[in-house]
Amino acid sequence: MSAKVWLVGAGPGDPELLTLKAVRALREADVVLIDDLVNDAVLEHCTGARIIPVGKRGGCRSTPQAFIHRLMLRYARQGKCVVRLKGGDPCIFGRGGEEAQWLREHGVDVELVNGITAGLAGATQCDISLTLRGVARGVTLVTAHTQDGSSLNWQALAQGGTTLVIYMGVAKLSEIREQLLAGGMAADTPVAMIENASLPHQRECRSDLTAMEQAASDFQLKSPAILVIGAVAARATTTLWEQGLPAMTADQSA
Amino acid sequence: MSAKVWLVGAGPGDPELLTLKAVRALREADVVLIDDLVNDAVLEHCTGARIIPVGKRGGCRSTPQAFIHRLMLRYARQGKCVVRLKGGDPCIFGRGGEEAQWLREHGVDVELVNGITAGLAGATQCDISLTLRGVARGVTLVTAHTQDGSSLNWQALAQGGTTLVIYMGVAKLSEIREQLLAGGMAADTPVAMIENASLPHQRECRSDLTAMEQAASDFQLKSPAILVIGAVAARATTTLWEQGLPAMTADQSA
Repeated sequence: MSAKVWLVGAGPGDPELLTLKAVRALREADVVLIDDLVNDAVLEHCTGARIIPVGKRGGCRSTPQAFIHRLMLRYARQGKCVVRLKGGDPCIFGRGGEEAQWLREHGVDVELVNGITAGLAGATQCDISLTLRGVARGVTLVTAHTQDGSSLNWQALAQGGTTLVIYMGVAKLSEIREQLLAGGMAADTPVAMIENASLPHQRECRSDLTAMEQAASDFQLKSPAILVIGAVAARATTTLWEQGLPAMTADQSA
Repeated sequence: MSAKVWLVGAGPGDPELLTLKAVRALREADVVLIDDLVNDAVLEHCTGARIIPVGKRGGCRSTPQAFIHRLMLRYARQGKCVVRLKGGDPCIFGRGGEEAQWLREHGVDVELVNGITAGLAGATQCDISLTLRGVARGVTLVTAHTQDGSSLNWQALAQGGTTLVIYMGVAKLSEIREQLLAGGMAADTPVAMIENASLPHQRECRSDLTAMEQAASDFQLKSPAILVIGAVAARATTTLWEQGLPAMTADQSA
């Protein structure tokens, strides 16, 4: 039997946003390597699996990635059903692509299972439609995390006409504001900041680009939080879509 | 009892990518209004609900949006549990935001349930990681559909440094190529075109920005399909992330 690892998205926090495929993986799992941001409630689907936390705990440094790789490999080679459980979607800021590649290079089969990413869930729970006809024809998900070697063109992001959803941005509000203003984004562009997306203790703070840092401070916004920047984040979207829309005659749903 | 409608994402096609919350909504439903792109297999979770197709069928014009609104309202006011089932995620090119707003203005409670959107699922099934450290710090989802009144800044999209995922683009490949080339995107930027994302008959065609129209023609690519444009769509990503990455010492999963 060939070794196999499931790289599974646990969704944004609400255990009901788990997919049926993720549930099946957890049921079959012998070993579950679980990230810090995953809601433990999803583990109710496990049937006797060994649970190994591999995320950051209580301010400690996180488990080295290489160690996680070796753990997955060891258990997979023992013939165990290994599930690597990540918050949100494994391939949206989740390193799923890297882990899959590494495992395959070491002869391990990989099955990736998508999850609902926190940015989408948080916006939806705040009644923000990230795309909206006549207002936003697209959405851009980015991370403000800067230890990544790749570069973001903030000026282009400011001008793209898509709603911006920024992950891991709480500590970078000042920098984000300056970059987007410099890129030509309007100072009064609406902003929603959503803490603990999709969980019962979700909190939302609305502001605009200029004031968002002060608003977050007053609100005592904490990580993990999602920023939604764009017209759709305005409190009252009714006028937006009523004014901007062509006549409602065709169903463009997809 | 107040009237209520569930606006539910059915996911990209694979019935196992349905969320547990969507399953609950379908189980409780008295009436299900189902879009064309939804896989009928998810209806197995219904327990006696009346199923009403409201999408395009066999080349006919789609059901007028206003008619769908009135149907939802009528059944909700009768006290029925109404589920409006959409392909993918209801708020990613799905009109969920508009429908929710309209229903609330008519005194109907709305519960939105996220789904896995086709762009993410298609990429994952082709082993493309839409975000990848050192390569792509974000992803932009846009629709090429132009009956929308909003404008896209293709030049900015070409320069943003995010992976582009384009929905409803099969008939617009020539226009997309010209706009992105004009915006400064490299002619050899890798492109993946994914038909029937996440379904057993999913097909993928790899090419690059210059050649994608010819490649799609040779491949006889058909809608619905997803375009993934960016370095992560290259066939061999190993070198990409190995060359571009900082040392793997910290777990940045989220």
